[in-house]
Amino acid sequence: MLIVAVTGMPGSGKSCFARVLSEELNAKLIVMGDVVREEVKKRGLPLTVTNIESVATELRKIYGRGAVGLKVAETLKELQGQYEYVVVDGVRSPEEITYLRAAGDLCVVAVHAAPAIRFERELRRAREGASTLDELKFRDSKNLEYGIGDVIAMADYMIINESDVQELVGQASRLAKVIRDGLWRDRCRG
Amino acid sequence: MLIVAVTGMPGSGKSCFARVLSEELNAKLIVMGDVVREEVKKRGLPLTVTNIESVATELRKIYGRGAVGLKVAETLKELQGQYEYVVVDGVRSPEEITYLRAAGDLCVVAVHAAPAIRFERELRRAREGASTLDELKFRDSKNLEYGIGDVIAMADYMIINESDVQELVGQASRLAKVIRDGLWRDRCRG
Repeated sequence: MLIVAVTGMPGSGKSCFARVLSEELNAKLIVMGDVVREEVKKRGLPLTVTNIESVATELRKIYGRGAVGLKVAETLKELQGQYEYVVVDGVRSPEEITYLRAAGDLCVVAVHAAPAIRFERELRRAREGASTLDELKFRDSKNLEYGIGDVIAMADYMIINESDVQELVGQASRLAKVIRDGLWRDRCRG
Repeated sequence: MLIVAVTGMPGSGKSCFARVLSEELNAKLIVMGDVVREEVKKRGLPLTVTNIESVATELRKIYGRGAVGLKVAETLKELQGQYEYVVVDGVRSPEEITYLRAAGDLCVVAVHAAPAIRFERELRRAREGASTLDELKFRDSKNLEYGIGDVIAMADYMIINESDVQELVGQASRLAKVIRDGLWRDRCRG
Protein backbone atom coordinates (compact mmCIF):
# COMPACT_ATOMS: atom_id res chain seq x y z
CA MET A 1 0.00 0.00 0.00
CA LEU A 2 1.37 3.39 -1.01
CA ILE A 3 0.41 6.31 1.21
CA VAL A 4 0.48 9.70 -0.55
CA ALA A 5 0.57 12.46 2.07
CA VAL A 6 -0.50 15.88 0.78
CA THR A 7 0.65 19.01 2.62
CA GLY A 8 0.37 22.72 1.97
CA MET A 9 -0.30 26.03 3.65
CA PRO A 10 -3.94 27.20 4.04
CA GLY A 11 -5.28 28.33 0.69
CA SER A 12 -2.61 26.48 -1.30
CA GLY A 13 -5.26 24.24 -2.85
CA LYS A 14 -3.98 21.05 -1.21
CA SER A 15 -7.46 19.63 -0.50
CA CYS A 16 -8.60 20.12 -4.08
CA PHE A 17 -5.37 18.50 -5.28
CA ALA A 18 -5.72 15.58 -2.83
CA ARG A 19 -9.31 14.93 -3.88
CA VAL A 20 -8.52 14.84 -7.60
CA LEU A 21 -5.40 12.74 -7.02
CA SER A 22 -7.39 10.21 -4.96
CA GLU A 23 -10.03 9.95 -7.69
CA GLU A 24 -7.40 9.46 -10.41
CA LEU A 25 -5.72 6.72 -8.34
CA ASN A 26 -8.97 5.07 -7.18
CA ALA A 27 -7.49 5.66 -3.77
CA LYS A 28 -9.05 5.90 -0.34
CA LEU A 29 -9.00 9.58 0.74
CA ILE A 30 -8.40 10.36 4.39
CA VAL A 31 -8.78 14.02 5.43
CA MET A 32 -6.74 14.77 8.58
CA GLY A 33 -9.27 17.41 9.65
CA ASP A 34 -12.09 14.81 9.48
CA VAL A 35 -10.21 12.62 11.95
CA VAL A 36 -10.45 15.40 14.54
CA ARG A 37 -14.10 16.05 13.60
CA GLU A 38 -14.90 12.38 14.25
CA GLU A 39 -13.26 12.62 17.67
CA VAL A 40 -15.48 15.61 18.45
CA LYS A 41 -18.57 13.63 17.39
CA LYS A 42 -17.46 10.56 19.40
CA ARG A 43 -17.49 12.77 22.49
CA GLY A 44 -21.04 13.91 21.75
CA LEU A 45 -19.94 17.53 21.27
CA PRO A 46 -21.42 19.84 18.63
CA LEU A 47 -19.14 20.40 15.60
CA THR A 48 -18.08 23.99 16.28
CA VAL A 49 -14.71 25.55 15.40
CA THR A 50 -14.02 25.94 19.14
CA ASN A 51 -14.72 22.27 19.89
CA ILE A 52 -12.62 21.09 16.92
CA GLU A 53 -9.72 23.28 18.02
CA SER A 54 -9.93 22.21 21.67
CA VAL A 55 -10.14 18.48 20.84
CA ALA A 56 -7.16 18.83 18.46
CA THR A 57 -5.19 20.67 21.16
CA GLU A 58 -6.11 17.99 23.72
CA LEU A 59 -5.05 15.15 21.38
CA ARG A 60 -1.70 16.89 20.80
CA LYS A 61 -1.27 17.42 24.54
CA ILE A 62 -1.65 13.67 25.12
CA TYR A 63 -0.01 12.21 22.01
CA GLY A 64 2.32 15.03 20.92
CA ARG A 65 2.53 17.00 17.68
CA GLY A 66 1.95 13.81 15.67
CA ALA A 67 -1.38 12.99 17.40
CA VAL A 68 -3.59 13.16 14.33
CA GLY A 69 -1.02 11.17 12.33
CA LEU A 70 -1.15 8.46 14.99
CA LYS A 71 -4.96 8.25 14.60
CA VAL A 72 -4.60 8.07 10.81
CA ALA A 73 -1.93 5.37 11.10
CA GLU A 74 -4.41 3.24 13.08
CA THR A 75 -6.97 3.62 10.28
CA LEU A 76 -4.29 2.80 7.69
CA LYS A 77 -3.56 -0.50 9.44
CA GLU A 78 -7.24 -1.44 9.14
CA LEU A 79 -7.19 -0.56 5.41
CA GLN A 80 -4.10 -2.73 4.74
CA GLY A 81 -4.73 -4.99 1.74
CA GLN A 82 -7.97 -3.22 0.78
CA TYR A 83 -6.42 -0.40 -1.23
CA GLU A 84 -3.37 -0.03 -3.46
CA TYR A 85 -3.22 3.71 -2.74
CA VAL A 86 -4.34 5.92 0.13
CA VAL A 87 -4.21 9.71 -0.11
CA VAL A 88 -3.93 11.58 3.21
CA ASP A 89 -4.97 15.23 2.94
CA GLY A 90 -3.64 17.83 5.36
CA VAL A 91 -0.40 16.56 6.90
CA ARG A 92 1.20 19.35 8.94
CA SER A 93 4.06 18.07 11.10
CA PRO A 94 7.20 15.92 10.78
CA GLU A 95 5.87 13.81 13.66
CA GLU A 96 2.74 12.97 11.64
CA ILE A 97 5.03 11.98 8.77
CA THR A 98 6.92 9.63 11.10
CA TYR A 99 3.68 7.83 12.06
CA LEU A 100 2.55 7.57 8.43
CA ARG A 101 5.95 6.28 7.31
CA ALA A 102 5.67 3.46 9.83
CA ALA A 103 2.35 2.42 8.26
CA GLY A 104 3.57 1.76 4.69
CA ASP A 105 5.45 3.20 1.71
CA LEU A 106 5.12 6.98 1.78
CA CYS A 107 5.34 9.82 -0.73
CA VAL A 108 4.99 13.42 0.45
CA VAL A 109 3.46 15.94 -1.96
CA ALA A 110 3.52 19.67 -1.15
CA VAL A 111 1.19 22.12 -2.86
CA HIS A 112 2.60 25.65 -2.90
CA ALA A 113 1.28 29.09 -3.72
CA ALA A 114 2.82 32.45 -2.81
CA PRO A 115 1.35 33.98 0.38
CA ALA A 116 -0.03 36.95 -1.62
CA ILE A 117 -1.94 34.52 -3.87
CA ARG A 118 -3.16 32.35 -0.99
CA PHE A 119 -4.39 35.37 0.98
CA GLU A 120 -6.23 36.77 -2.01
CA ARG A 121 -7.93 33.40 -2.62
CA GLU A 122 -8.88 33.01 1.02
CA LEU A 123 -10.25 36.53 1.32
CA ARG A 124 -12.32 35.88 -1.80
CA ARG A 125 -13.88 32.70 -0.45
CA ALA A 126 -14.05 34.05 3.13
CA ARG A 127 -14.29 30.77 4.97
CA GLU A 128 -15.49 30.54 8.53
CA GLY A 129 -12.86 31.40 11.11
CA ALA A 130 -10.51 33.23 8.76
CA SER A 131 -11.80 36.22 6.90
CA THR A 132 -9.37 39.02 7.69
CA LEU A 133 -5.71 39.26 6.72
CA ASP A 134 -4.70 39.10 10.39
CA GLU A 135 -6.67 35.87 10.86
CA LEU A 136 -5.04 34.35 7.77
CA LYS A 137 -1.59 35.32 9.01
CA PHE A 138 -2.40 33.82 12.42
CA ARG A 139 -3.52 30.57 10.76
CA ASP A 140 -0.28 30.51 8.76
CA SER A 141 1.75 30.95 11.94
CA LYS A 142 -0.15 28.10 13.65
CA ASN A 143 0.66 25.82 10.70
CA LEU A 144 4.34 26.81 10.83
CA GLU A 145 4.37 26.11 14.58
CA TYR A 146 3.24 22.54 13.89
CA GLY A 147 6.30 22.20 11.66
CA ILE A 148 4.61 22.26 8.26
CA GLY A 149 7.64 24.12 6.86
CA ASP A 150 9.86 21.10 7.50
CA VAL A 151 7.37 18.83 5.75
CA ILE A 152 7.20 21.16 2.73
CA ALA A 153 11.00 21.58 2.54
CA MET A 154 11.43 17.79 2.45
CA ALA A 155 8.57 17.07 0.01
CA ASP A 156 9.15 14.37 -2.61
CA TYR A 157 6.95 16.23 -5.08
CA MET A 158 6.33 19.98 -5.19
CA ILE A 159 3.21 21.22 -6.98
CA ILE A 160 2.92 24.93 -7.74
CA ASN A 161 -0.69 26.05 -7.74
CA GLU A 162 -0.76 29.71 -8.71
CA SER A 163 -2.96 29.46 -11.77
CA ASP A 164 -6.52 28.05 -11.96
CA VAL A 165 -8.33 24.85 -10.97
CA GLN A 166 -8.02 23.30 -14.45
CA GLU A 167 -4.26 23.60 -14.25
CA LEU A 168 -4.23 22.03 -10.78
CA VAL A 169 -6.42 19.14 -11.95
CA GLY A 170 -3.98 18.57 -14.82
CA GLN A 171 -1.08 18.39 -12.39
CA ALA A 172 -2.96 15.91 -10.19
CA SER A 173 -3.64 13.71 -13.26
CA ARG A 174 0.00 13.82 -14.28
CA LEU A 175 1.21 12.91 -10.79
CA ALA A 176 -1.34 10.06 -10.65
CA LYS A 177 0.17 8.67 -13.84
CA VAL A 178 3.72 8.97 -12.47
CA ILE A 179 2.59 7.07 -9.36
CA ARG A 180 0.68 4.38 -11.28
CA ASP A 181 3.78 3.89 -13.46
CA GLY A 182 5.75 3.15 -10.28
CA LEU A 183 8.14 6.06 -10.79
CA TRP A 184 7.61 7.10 -7.17
CA ARG A 185 9.88 4.22 -6.05
CA ASP A 186 13.08 6.08 -7.01
CA ARG A 187 11.76 9.34 -5.62
CA CYS A 188 10.18 8.61 -2.26
CA ARG A 189 12.57 7.46 0.43
CA GLY A 190 11.71 4.48 2.65
CA MET B 1 16.29 48.81 -4.04
CA LEU B 2 14.74 45.37 -4.40
CA ILE B 3 16.33 42.56 -2.39
CA VAL B 4 15.77 39.10 -3.83
CA ALA B 5 16.50 36.50 -1.15
CA VAL B 6 17.16 33.00 -2.47
CA THR B 7 16.63 30.00 -0.18
CA GLY B 8 16.72 26.25 -0.66
CA MET B 9 17.92 23.04 0.95
CA PRO B 10 21.51 21.87 0.31
CA GLY B 11 21.81 20.52 -3.22
CA SER B 12 18.65 22.27 -4.41
CA GLY B 13 20.71 24.37 -6.83
CA LYS B 14 19.93 27.69 -5.08
CA SER B 15 23.44 29.10 -5.54
CA CYS B 16 23.48 28.39 -9.27
CA PHE B 17 20.02 29.95 -9.53
CA ALA B 18 21.06 33.01 -7.48
CA ARG B 19 24.17 33.56 -9.61
CA VAL B 20 22.29 33.43 -12.93
CA LEU B 21 19.47 35.59 -11.55
CA SER B 22 21.97 38.23 -10.36
CA GLU B 23 23.67 38.28 -13.78
CA GLU B 24 20.34 38.65 -15.59
CA LEU B 25 19.33 41.52 -13.29
CA ASN B 26 22.76 43.20 -13.27
CA ALA B 27 22.38 42.83 -9.54
CA LYS B 28 24.89 42.80 -6.73
CA LEU B 29 25.18 39.20 -5.46
CA ILE B 30 25.71 38.65 -1.74
CA VAL B 31 26.42 35.06 -0.64
CA MET B 32 25.43 34.53 3.01
CA GLY B 33 28.19 31.95 3.44
CA ASP B 34 30.79 34.49 2.27
CA VAL B 35 29.71 36.85 5.05
CA VAL B 36 30.75 34.24 7.59
CA ARG B 37 33.94 33.47 5.65
CA GLU B 38 34.86 37.16 5.83
CA GLU B 39 34.32 37.16 9.59
CA VAL B 40 36.70 34.19 9.83
CA LYS B 41 39.32 36.08 7.78
CA LYS B 42 38.83 39.26 9.85
CA ARG B 43 39.80 37.24 12.91
CA GLY B 44 42.95 36.02 11.20
CA LEU B 45 41.80 32.38 11.31
CA PRO B 46 42.45 29.91 8.48
CA LEU B 47 39.38 29.20 6.31
CA THR B 48 38.58 25.67 7.48
CA VAL B 49 35.12 24.11 7.74
CA THR B 50 35.57 23.93 11.52
CA ASN B 51 36.45 27.64 11.82
CA ILE B 52 33.56 28.67 9.56
CA GLU B 53 31.12 26.58 11.60
CA SER B 54 32.41 27.87 14.94
CA VAL B 55 32.35 31.54 13.87
CA ALA B 56 28.79 31.08 12.53
CA THR B 57 27.74 29.43 15.79
CA GLU B 58 29.34 32.22 17.80
CA LEU B 59 27.64 34.94 15.72
CA ARG B 60 24.29 33.22 16.28
CA LYS B 61 24.97 32.91 20.01
CA ILE B 62 25.49 36.69 20.22
CA TYR B 63 22.99 38.00 17.65
CA GLY B 64 20.47 35.12 17.49
CA ARG B 65 19.31 32.94 14.58
CA GLY B 66 19.24 36.00 12.31
CA ALA B 67 22.91 36.89 12.91
CA VAL B 68 24.12 36.51 9.32
CA GLY B 69 21.05 38.39 8.07
CA LEU B 70 21.94 41.26 10.40
CA LYS B 71 25.46 41.42 8.88
CA VAL B 72 23.99 41.35 5.35
CA ALA B 73 21.50 44.10 6.26
CA GLU B 74 24.44 46.33 7.27
CA THR B 75 26.06 45.75 3.86
CA LEU B 76 22.72 46.44 2.15
CA LYS B 77 22.50 49.83 3.84
CA GLU B 78 25.91 50.72 2.38
CA LEU B 79 24.76 49.62 -1.09
CA GLN B 80 21.60 51.78 -0.93
CA GLY B 81 21.27 53.83 -4.13
CA GLN B 82 24.10 51.99 -5.90
CA TYR B 83 22.05 49.06 -7.17
CA GLU B 84 18.49 48.59 -8.36
CA TYR B 85 18.59 44.90 -7.40
CA VAL B 86 20.53 42.86 -4.86
CA VAL B 87 20.37 39.06 -4.82
CA VAL B 88 21.10 37.41 -1.46
CA ASP B 89 22.05 33.74 -1.79
CA GLY B 90 21.52 31.31 1.07
CA VAL B 91 18.88 32.70 3.42
CA ARG B 92 17.98 30.06 6.01
CA SER B 93 15.91 31.50 8.85
CA PRO B 94 12.80 33.66 9.34
CA GLU B 95 14.93 35.92 11.56
CA GLU B 96 17.29 36.60 8.65
CA ILE B 97 14.22 37.44 6.53
CA THR B 98 13.10 39.94 9.18
CA TYR B 99 16.46 41.78 9.01
CA LEU B 100 16.45 41.80 5.19
CA ARG B 101 12.86 43.04 5.07
CA ALA B 102 13.86 46.00 7.22
CA ALA B 103 16.55 46.92 4.66
CA GLY B 104 14.31 47.38 1.58
CA ASP B 105 11.65 45.77 -0.60
CA LEU B 106 12.02 42.01 -0.40
CA CYS B 107 11.08 39.01 -2.55
CA VAL B 108 11.79 35.49 -1.30
CA VAL B 109 12.56 32.81 -3.89
CA ALA B 110 12.78 29.14 -2.87
CA VAL B 111 14.52 26.56 -5.05
CA HIS B 112 13.19 23.05 -4.44
CA ALA B 113 14.24 19.55 -5.41
CA ALA B 114 13.07 16.27 -3.87
CA PRO B 115 15.44 14.93 -1.18
CA ALA B 116 16.19 11.84 -3.30
CA ILE B 117 17.31 14.08 -6.17
CA ARG B 118 19.32 16.41 -3.92
CA PHE B 119 21.09 13.52 -2.23
CA GLU B 120 21.97 11.90 -5.55
CA ARG B 121 23.37 15.21 -6.84
CA GLU B 122 25.37 15.84 -3.69
CA LEU B 123 26.80 12.33 -3.58
CA ARG B 124 27.84 12.74 -7.23
CA ARG B 125 29.70 15.98 -6.59
CA ALA B 126 30.92 14.85 -3.16
CA ARG B 127 31.71 18.24 -1.66
CA GLU B 128 33.92 18.63 1.32
CA GLY B 129 32.20 18.02 4.61
CA ALA B 130 29.26 16.07 3.22
CA SER B 131 29.96 12.98 1.24
CA THR B 132 27.90 10.24 2.91
CA LEU B 133 24.12 9.98 3.08
CA ASP B 134 24.25 10.38 6.86
CA GLU B 135 26.25 13.60 6.53
CA LEU B 136 23.76 14.94 3.97
CA LYS B 137 20.84 14.10 6.25
CA PHE B 138 22.61 15.80 9.14
CA ARG B 139 23.16 18.93 7.05
CA ASP B 140 19.48 18.89 6.11
CA SER B 141 18.48 18.66 9.76
CA LYS B 142 20.77 21.61 10.66
CA ASN B 143 19.11 23.70 7.94
CA LEU B 144 15.65 22.75 9.22
CA GLU B 145 16.72 23.69 12.76
CA TYR B 146 17.55 27.20 11.55
CA GLY B 147 13.96 27.42 10.32
CA ILE B 148 14.57 27.14 6.58
CA GLY B 149 11.28 25.22 6.26
CA ASP B 150 9.33 28.31 7.36
CA VAL B 151 11.17 30.44 4.80
CA ILE B 152 10.44 27.92 2.02
CA ALA B 153 6.77 27.52 3.01
CA MET B 154 6.29 31.32 2.81
CA ALA B 155 8.27 31.86 -0.42
CA ASP B 156 6.93 34.40 -2.90
CA TYR B 157 8.31 32.36 -5.81
CA MET B 158 8.90 28.61 -5.86
CA ILE B 159 11.34 27.23 -8.42
CA ILE B 160 11.43 23.48 -9.00
CA ASN B 161 14.91 22.32 -10.02
CA GLU B 162 14.71 18.60 -10.72
CA SER B 163 15.86 18.65 -14.32
CA ASP B 164 19.19 20.00 -15.65
CA VAL B 165 21.17 23.24 -15.44
CA GLN B 166 19.83 24.56 -18.78
CA GLU B 167 16.32 24.30 -17.43
CA LEU B 168 17.31 26.11 -14.21
CA VAL B 169 19.02 28.90 -16.16
CA GLY B 170 15.83 29.31 -18.18
CA GLN B 171 13.79 29.67 -15.02
CA ALA B 172 16.22 32.27 -13.65
CA SER B 173 15.91 34.26 -16.91
CA ARG B 174 12.14 34.14 -16.79
CA LEU B 175 12.03 35.27 -13.16
CA ALA B 176 14.49 38.10 -13.97
CA LYS B 177 12.06 39.29 -16.64
CA VAL B 178 9.10 39.12 -14.25
CA ILE B 179 11.08 41.19 -11.75
CA ARG B 180 12.30 43.75 -14.31
CA ASP B 181 8.69 44.12 -15.50
CA GLY B 182 7.76 45.09 -11.92
CA LEU B 183 5.34 42.16 -11.51
CA TRP B 184 6.94 41.36 -8.15
CA ARG B 185 5.08 44.31 -6.59
CA ASP B 186 1.78 42.43 -6.43
CA ARG B 187 3.47 39.24 -5.31
CA CYS B 188 5.98 40.15 -2.61
CA ARG B 189 4.52 41.46 0.60
CA GLY B 190 5.97 44.59 2.23
